[in-house]
Amino acid sequence: MGRVTERRRTIRIRDGAVTTRPDTLVAEEPLEIRLNGKPLAITMRTPGDDFALAAGFLVSEGVIGEGSEVQSIVYCAGATADGVNTYNVVDVKLAPGVVIPDITLERNVYTTSSCGLCGKASLDAVRTTTRHPVADTPPVRVTPALLAALPDRLREAQRVFDRTGGLHAAALFSPEGELLDIREDVGRHNAVDKLVGRALTDERLPLSQSILLVSGRASFELAQKAVMAGIPMLAAVSAPSSLAVDLAAESGLTLVGFLRGQSMNVYAGDHRIALGAPVGQG
Amino acid sequence: MGRVTERRRTIRIRDGAVTTRPDTLVAEEPLEIRLNGKPLAITMRTPGDDFALAAGFLVSEGVIGEGSEVQSIVYCAGATADGVNTYNVVDVKLAPGVVIPDITLERNVYTTSSCGLCGKASLDAVRTTTRHPVADTPPVRVTPALLAALPDRLREAQRVFDRTGGLHAAALFSPEGELLDIREDVGRHNAVDKLVGRALTDERLPLSQSILLVSGRASFELAQKAVMAGIPMLAAVSAPSSLAVDLAAESGLTLVGFLRGQSMNVYAGDHRIALGAPVGQG
Repeated sequence: MGRVTERRRTIRIRDGAVTTRPDTLVAEEPLEIRLNGKPLAITMRTPGDDFALAAGFLVSEGVIGEGSEVQSIVYCAGATADGVNTYNVVDVKLAPGVVIPDITLERNVYTTSSCGLCGKASLDAVRTTTRHPVADTPPVRVTPALLAALPDRLREAQRVFDRTGGLHAAALFSPEGELLDIREDVGRHNAVDKLVGRALTDERLPLSQSILLVSGRASFELAQKAVMAGIPMLAAVSAPSSLAVDLAAESGLTLVGFLRGQSMNVYAGDHRIALGAPVGQG
Repeated sequence: MGRVTERRRTIRIRDGAVTTRPDTLVAEEPLEIRLNGKPLAITMRTPGDDFALAAGFLVSEGVIGEGSEVQSIVYCAGATADGVNTYNVVDVKLAPGVVIPDITLERNVYTTSSCGLCGKASLDAVRTTTRHPVADTPPVRVTPALLAALPDRLREAQRVFDRTGGLHAAALFSPEGELLDIREDVGRHNAVDKLVGRALTDERLPLSQSILLVSGRASFELAQKAVMAGIPMLAAVSAPSSLAVDLAAESGLTLVGFLRGQSMNVYAGDHRIALGAPVGQG
């Protein structure tokens, strides 16, 4: 395990000069997630924290909501003809009596929605399946200055990024700006699932006193994962999508984008941002 | 249609100054792809070029390989109780006699692989399903200077990116550096599928005289899409993953990463790069 990076021979071209040297790349391997022995999903991910990834994926999909619902998480041996364990198949066994909801995959949520496939149906699906509606007690409220300091803390804490340039990072911060946890992965959604899965097994769900920071853009999928884990605030270094903003507005999630230097945009839930001065019209 | 961007009220914080104004966001909506009427996959995408996206997705999955195999592509009306067309469900009907391979989803390719789930199985799945093995005649061969000029051309051609900051771009260039086509989407994989799908319906597959440039990183999935469309060269502005490099090396794809300014790394297929000087050891 721990194959977070791999080395490959690379030809480097720098202003006309050509050299060869080994380069460090982010590792990418498929992970099959099984639920009670039945294949559920496959994701391309960076190996490591696989049990957390599987658990977090199940939280994001609304299958589980607390650690006691999981009986065991194991790597499957014997998936291959010669019984070799590739460490790429993980089985999550639920505790006795835990009923698997009839929504085993995101796609089913959409296709069974009564209003047909549309953004609204996607929002409704999250609202009806979340186990942890955003409800922060005590209320989370932070200053723009506190938010502005988080990206640098994320970058400082990234162990692999500087070497490969190929990893997305996701981190949880306290409302006081303290780094609580950080995960990296070739897929942004995996990094968030790893954070959430670790919180589940540590009995820290819902994450109602946390700020989730992601290194890139904020898609609907990332906003969904925040809402499903009860996270009240999602901040992204880059742009959000329209559907991410809509989901945030509908579910009470604070969504901050373009968090760079002392600048940021607040797209929803601005009651959690201490703006100080009255808001003027630009 | 044409809902490529949407406007939302946004609070902007710039060095302590707070204003509100409408902000332009990239639109994100679910698209369900059906094959002969049967739901196959759902992807979150930026609306527009949906028929091309569906066709390109089917090329990437090895279901079709040329335009004559498609009889029709339509938006499904009547998916909802009141018969409203959401323009989010597309049905691809194959021509009579076209057999749907037994690999209707990527996940099935992996799970039925005899060696179990691993990177090697993922590579094998692409090799055995591609309809257009990389075979460029005449051979594509470009200079580093030509490659270095492409990212600026991509950015110049991007119509939406500057407004939202939320779109990934993918473009096809000729071996002479001419921009052949460009697509943008909230998902990088969708942008590539839209390029490939358009090429399929225009009877331009395999794209054996093309360079594919993507605005971000090069994952296994993107390398797979290039190989499935017969594209001989994939260039990315940012880092590739280990599995993308492995797939490129195994399938004869040239893979260039970190294409910035006059610098780049060549990870596989360097016979298509005119290096000029002999390669030294760095």
